[in-house]
Amino acid sequence: MMKITLPDGSIREYEKGSTPMDIAKSISEGFARNVISAKFNDTVLETVTPLNEDGALVLYTWKDKEGKKAFWHSSSHIVAQALEELYPGIKLTIGPAIDNGFYYDVDFGEHTVSEKDFPLIEKKALEIARGKHDFKMRPISKAEALSLYKSQGNEFKVELIENLEDGTITFCDHDTFTDLCRGGHIPNTGIVKAIKILNVAGAYWRGDEKKPQLTRIYGISFPKQKELTEYLALVEEAKKRDHRKLGKELELFAFSQKVGQGLPLWLPKGAALRERLEDFLKKAQKKAGYEMVITPHIGQKELYVTSGHYEKYGADSFQPIHTPKEDEEFLLKPMNCPHHCEIYNVRPFSYRELPKRYAEFGTVYRYEQSGELHGLTRVRGFTQDDAHIFCTPEQLDQEFKNVIDLSLYVLGSLGFDNFTAQVSVRDLDTPEKYIGSVENWEKAENAIINAAKEKGLDYVIEKGEAAFYGPKLDFMVKDALGRQWQLGTIQVDYNLPERFDLTYKGSDNELHRPVMIHRAPFGSMERFIALLLEHTGGNFPLWLIPEQAIVLPVSEKHEKYAEKVLKSLENDEIRALVDARNETVGKKIREAEMNKIPFMLIVGENEEASNTISVRRHGGEDLGSISLEQFSDLVTKEINSTLKSF
Amino acid sequence: MMKITLPDGSIREYEKGSTPMDIAKSISEGFARNVISAKFNDTVLETVTPLNEDGALVLYTWKDKEGKKAFWHSSSHIVAQALEELYPGIKLTIGPAIDNGFYYDVDFGEHTVSEKDFPLIEKKALEIARGKHDFKMRPISKAEALSLYKSQGNEFKVELIENLEDGTITFCDHDTFTDLCRGGHIPNTGIVKAIKILNVAGAYWRGDEKKPQLTRIYGISFPKQKELTEYLALVEEAKKRDHRKLGKELELFAFSQKVGQGLPLWLPKGAALRERLEDFLKKAQKKAGYEMVITPHIGQKELYVTSGHYEKYGADSFQPIHTPKEDEEFLLKPMNCPHHCEIYNVRPFSYRELPKRYAEFGTVYRYEQSGELHGLTRVRGFTQDDAHIFCTPEQLDQEFKNVIDLSLYVLGSLGFDNFTAQVSVRDLDTPEKYIGSVENWEKAENAIINAAKEKGLDYVIEKGEAAFYGPKLDFMVKDALGRQWQLGTIQVDYNLPERFDLTYKGSDNELHRPVMIHRAPFGSMERFIALLLEHTGGNFPLWLIPEQAIVLPVSEKHEKYAEKVLKSLENDEIRALVDARNETVGKKIREAEMNKIPFMLIVGENEEASNTISVRRHGGEDLGSISLEQFSDLVTKEINSTLKSF
Repeated sequence: MMKITLPDGSIREYEKGSTPMDIAKSISEGFARNVISAKFNDTVLETVTPLNEDGALVLYTWKDKEGKKAFWHSSSHIVAQALEELYPGIKLTIGPAIDNGFYYDVDFGEHTVSEKDFPLIEKKALEIARGKHDFKMRPISKAEALSLYKSQGNEFKVELIENLEDGTITFCDHDTFTDLCRGGHIPNTGIVKAIKILNVAGAYWRGDEKKPQLTRIYGISFPKQKELTEYLALVEEAKKRDHRKLGKELELFAFSQKVGQGLPLWLPKGAALRERLEDFLKKAQKKAGYEMVITPHIGQKELYVTSGHYEKYGADSFQPIHTPKEDEEFLLKPMNCPHHCEIYNVRPFSYRELPKRYAEFGTVYRYEQSGELHGLTRVRGFTQDDAHIFCTPEQLDQEFKNVIDLSLYVLGSLGFDNFTAQVSVRDLDTPEKYIGSVENWEKAENAIINAAKEKGLDYVIEKGEAAFYGPKLDFMVKDALGRQWQLGTIQVDYNLPERFDLTYKGSDNELHRPVMIHRAPFGSMERFIALLLEHTGGNFPLWLIPEQAIVLPVSEKHEKYAEKVLKSLENDEIRALVDARNETVGKKIREAEMNKIPFMLIVGENEEASNTISVRRHGGEDLGSISLEQFSDLVTKEINSTLKSF
Repeated sequence: MMKITLPDGSIREYEKGSTPMDIAKSISEGFARNVISAKFNDTVLETVTPLNEDGALVLYTWKDKEGKKAFWHSSSHIVAQALEELYPGIKLTIGPAIDNGFYYDVDFGEHTVSEKDFPLIEKKALEIARGKHDFKMRPISKAEALSLYKSQGNEFKVELIENLEDGTITFCDHDTFTDLCRGGHIPNTGIVKAIKILNVAGAYWRGDEKKPQLTRIYGISFPKQKELTEYLALVEEAKKRDHRKLGKELELFAFSQKVGQGLPLWLPKGAALRERLEDFLKKAQKKAGYEMVITPHIGQKELYVTSGHYEKYGADSFQPIHTPKEDEEFLLKPMNCPHHCEIYNVRPFSYRELPKRYAEFGTVYRYEQSGELHGLTRVRGFTQDDAHIFCTPEQLDQEFKNVIDLSLYVLGSLGFDNFTAQVSVRDLDTPEKYIGSVENWEKAENAIINAAKEKGLDYVIEKGEAAFYGPKLDFMVKDALGRQWQLGTIQVDYNLPERFDLTYKGSDNELHRPVMIHRAPFGSMERFIALLLEHTGGNFPLWLIPEQAIVLPVSEKHEKYAEKVLKSLENDEIRALVDARNETVGKKIREAEMNKIPFMLIVGENEEASNTISVRRHGGEDLGSISLEQFSDLVTKEINSTLKSF
């Protein structure tokens, strides 16, 4: 018998030789039907592999990340078989699972593969899958493995095998196909019900441009056809919602080759949107007792040596700025914290004056290689909605709760209701890795966990994920496409108060070290607006959207009335404009739809006579003819339903 | 006879040999009594110097800058004589007039001079002045001049004379005193009625630290004792109002050695004040059709090569920022205009869409030597209230008027009512110095002058003072101490539209160049706030001041009522705080006075019983017991009396 520990901590006894699938079935037949992969003592293996010793077992279904990995890796075997059958003589190299699907790098020899061949490959792969062939692992000696691939003339596999140790080499067989493989497959090909070849691209063998160029075939597969259809729709939607595309269409931001890549220029509508977001946060922060400060975008190199940022960013970031006589050195600031520490240090504080909460929309600059840049999500200059709270250790608990409240208010007002919290704490086995007293760490970790609990957050604790200078809490947000983003950090810091020798006078009249909290509910204005664009597809919450309404006179005759309507809207602080062009209302509506304007107010003979407007919502809903007062109420109500009071 | 042209353009004939004073008397005996210096054909001379040829004559009184210069230069002769008499054997070097007074650099040999000796020097100098000794110029040969100073052992004067050409050397005599001098004196020492020695400092001979160190005696003098008294009071007041002192006391801003000199840190109260100023301008700009944009604080070097700023600032400013691989070069932006040009260039514009008015509170960085830095007025990083208007040449006229309106609104709301406008136009004699068509220049200059006229500005036209790229208008403001500051520029620019190839499609369907206007009513937030601090002595206009009122409970018993009062004030959007410390009301009032809080609201037994507050104004005025509603009205009224609607 052997003892198997399951993820819930329970230990069960099984006969030696039992497979993960046997164990799954012993738990529940229904559950076992969904199990497709397993991990035993940190090694991924097939569900049919017999276990012969005590250990920890995790069983995976399609819902697990590891389950998907096995699924997609197995699918790459199926596609590889299809390719071999369709294109005899090709040489296979490697075929891993990736975040969304899998690829296989192939030397196609004289063959070429392009998009028009995808249906054929998919058809052949599906035929193979439908054969319900078991994936079977088989150990093989190095000599035998080499001899097989040498006989095929596949120098790539030969190279791979030459780097492996004899006795550790395995092949995986299914149907008539065999591949060198470490393992981690689903039980059989039949589980794969839908396969899509997504893309074909060039790739160098081992990523080395001096080595032969191969063809990389990207694909994805699913256990249900419906899931593939949904996935492809999501990809299509993501393309439509790409913030770079929407940002251009809605005239929010632009890049200029002359100014430099990764340095966004905020156009009027984007700058106004960003200002509204900033004002929204400013207002809440004011209520929460924050004070705004303003600090320069550069600092002496010495400042960042003190803070430790020079050590971290120095070599890889923008290089020092010299003065004409070369006697001074400055750096573009990669962080606002050193500046805020210096503000704290302007005069001494008593414990009665704490906490001090310094907030700044601080623009920081960090070098990124041009290949890494991506719209507003990876830039070289960005504005953090930064704040630093300096408090006594006793105040940490309450301050942390307050920051969570603020973060929840921000997420809620912007329509993110699908999020979890990740609490990063110490690894207790390596206490030497952390600065600050054990007592303070305990206090801080407890403060965070208690706050997360009390605020009803859905949280996970990640052991050993804390920074060396303190524990933290990150909000992980799911967007409308189901993608996860890290948004909003609350980080405790015992390090900078030491480095900057920050103190306050306690009630005991002695000097003490304050604790510092870094926090940024948006993270950065650039990244947040990118995310918001993709999450909403440009249909921002009504309180935030650049133009809330557009007045569309049906003809020139009603232009004057349209202007009167506009005035009235402006008086009610509704952001609106008039489309007085000599175009049909149909065309005006189509363009307003494209510009994502929530309300189209059509005015003609009837409306003018009855002093009303015909309201059409973005998307097509007809709200009929209503008075301006009714419309204003409607807008106010909708805004109040998202933008709760804080 | 000779023909003398006077500043009003009139030409009068005089006998050869007539002196400026003769001519002054021929104009008016009363005027002549005030004439103290003259300029003939661009050479400053004494009023007793006979004129022998046709030419242009300007006569100066104490009111003229040149008159003051002659007065102070002459005073330095008087003080030099006093020093020679008090400290025999000293060696005189040079003694020029400066902006406020004069100095004399002296080698005192074995003597030392300190502040306690000032009264003695002043007394001796005044005695000499009262002798009414004429200043008399006398040509002298180089040999004779050298021999005189060699006999005195004055190597400094010898060095000066050796560098002069024989035949151009003059001495000036008065009383028993003689000095090497180019001329430019008042008629006699008796005109000087008040002399004050201000300061003593070290100075190297010819400013060269390798040369001997001399003692610099600073002084100032006036034609009336009363004027000296006023001047000294003003200096005293200026010291009290020094924005560096007030900025620290009121906790508005600070500097940190670690962050770097010349890089202000805005503390909470200062940042809030600055934000109120910015919001005030933003609001007015929004009404005036401006759109806010946001641009990065760096740009590729190439951007500034295109704009021409690299040529201008490159060598003397912060040096280029390299990337880790050294393949890219960036600069801290010294100006926002190149970025705004690139925003204009994002998409094509039709004439129907112009003007575009892009505004940004843009922080720019320019290197200044550390010796040049001064509080917030000379810094290395500052935020311009910048905007660039891109318009058709036809729109320039109206746009210019609009900018003047905005500037007048800004100056008025901040209590500057003493200002003039300076219009800088081309020098018609050197047309080759200017870019852009003559037609456009005429259009622009006329637009500016017409706008200045129409808006009723008190303006002067400065010929030849225009930049090569366009004419401009500067507002020159007098502060409460009578000092003049340049504040707010409106600059027409034909250059950047060329350099950035900016275009718009005209009604003729052809591409045209827009005209660009740069404008900044505040100039920079840093310099403006410094000026405002010194102008108001920290007593900012009520709408702007950090704290508008402070509630002072007379004892602990009334703290609760004080908090109730505070709530009510906050509801009325009055910025207030409570001083609940266990101190006497007297002490609280004194501190509130020091903190320049406009209203002190004292609450005790009576006030609590009658639901009122006892209001004391900053400075001491007692407004008696009034209701909170009355107080709120009072505040609103006072704010509305400064902050006019726009």
